[in-house]
Amino acid sequence: MTTADSGCILYLVPVPLSDGLFCTCNLGFLSEIKIFFSEKISETQKFLKKNKLLSSFTDCEFHEIKNISSSDAEKLAALIKPAAALFSDAGCPCIADPGNLIVRAAHKKNIRIVPLPGSSSIMLALMASGLNGQQFIFHGYFPVKEDQRRQKIRNAEKDAQRSKRTQIVMETPYRNSVLLESLLAVLNDATLLCIASDLTGMNERIVTLAVRDWKKRKIIPEKVPTLFLFGE
Amino acid sequence: MTTADSGCILYLVPVPLSDGLFCTCNLGFLSEIKIFFSEKISETQKFLKKNKLLSSFTDCEFHEIKNISSSDAEKLAALIKPAAALFSDAGCPCIADPGNLIVRAAHKKNIRIVPLPGSSSIMLALMASGLNGQQFIFHGYFPVKEDQRRQKIRNAEKDAQRSKRTQIVMETPYRNSVLLESLLAVLNDATLLCIASDLTGMNERIVTLAVRDWKKRKIIPEKVPTLFLFGE
Repeated sequence: MTTADSGCILYLVPVPLSDGLFCTCNLGFLSEIKIFFSEKISETQKFLKKNKLLSSFTDCEFHEIKNISSSDAEKLAALIKPAAALFSDAGCPCIADPGNLIVRAAHKKNIRIVPLPGSSSIMLALMASGLNGQQFIFHGYFPVKEDQRRQKIRNAEKDAQRSKRTQIVMETPYRNSVLLESLLAVLNDATLLCIASDLTGMNERIVTLAVRDWKKRKIIPEKVPTLFLFGE
Repeated sequence: MTTADSGCILYLVPVPLSDGLFCTCNLGFLSEIKIFFSEKISETQKFLKKNKLLSSFTDCEFHEIKNISSSDAEKLAALIKPAAALFSDAGCPCIADPGNLIVRAAHKKNIRIVPLPGSSSIMLALMASGLNGQQFIFHGYFPVKEDQRRQKIRNAEKDAQRSKRTQIVMETPYRNSVLLESLLAVLNDATLLCIASDLTGMNERIVTLAVRDWKKRKIIPEKVPTLFLFGE
């Protein structure tokens, strides 16, 4: 299998989920990079400074990529000469995170894409849940409207029963308790539910219980980044 | 949110996908661990020796966890005192990999689960595909029988069209060309297909093209670990 190669490279750089820099990759090559794409320039510059990865930003270009269109992405991909780096604010770029349109535009230009290993809250939560990791669905966010959210949960539970796939849902911290309330109202008592909060952080907490046992606890989830996983 | 805590810990340790040890975690704590669970003891011992993580195995216990039952898992979880480590052979434990039954049994005993960040071929492929990373399905392996495999591909493409979810499939290296043939026969010409091979390895190759463009190439995929991703 071969493909024409432009000689250019786009690096995809994950950023640790919490302040504890547990996993360190060899990012020394970044000192050669002049073009940076990221969700929030200030966050990326803070990360680069804190980890002493770039001594000076003077001849570097930083481009924000949140909410860009396909045509913006094509213009940005044209800047990848000979190399650029796409950063996430936390976790893996392009996964529950912006960036995939630039990667797609880069593929069109035969730019080599080099994804670097790092923390993914989705993978950490799934590993630690004890639920099925052979097949799974990541839904992103469930709807804000309650009736729509409950319908989504109902459908996802049916999928879990039929296909044995683990269902993974993300929520913004201040809505964690609203989502948990809907999950406990809709899911069967025997369904296993994992709540995984503040992954890799000081207050990491990953608990898997049957829905009937969660109901007995009357918990209020903290307002920290949390993933909810359920299945059989 | 609180939970009773047994004071015991189960660490989940990812192992690099290829020989290139690109991402290094601080695994110094392993020198205190005496109980190890893994898919293949010899692979885990090779990894520990190569990376100088354990100087001697004499007072350590190694347990193989491939194809264990729930009751085996409960017996093994009872050994986690005060700590144990669950290793993958490559990538993340419990994801397209054995181990989740031990994690599940450990949750029942209020053992703290600590998942460590590392390489996941699924995440690397999804990041680098340029396809939608806001919602996705990991199917594991598609069926070996051709008619069943084609039906699965048809259903997965419908799901991609309806829900915009990226579809991710894994294949054993010697069957890569059989799966690719079915994908090219069944998928619409406009569907985007990413083939991601030998991730983090010396021959890493990640290419995303419309099905119509793959058809023009008449490629035969190499017999190396490969993920296939498709969507809109």
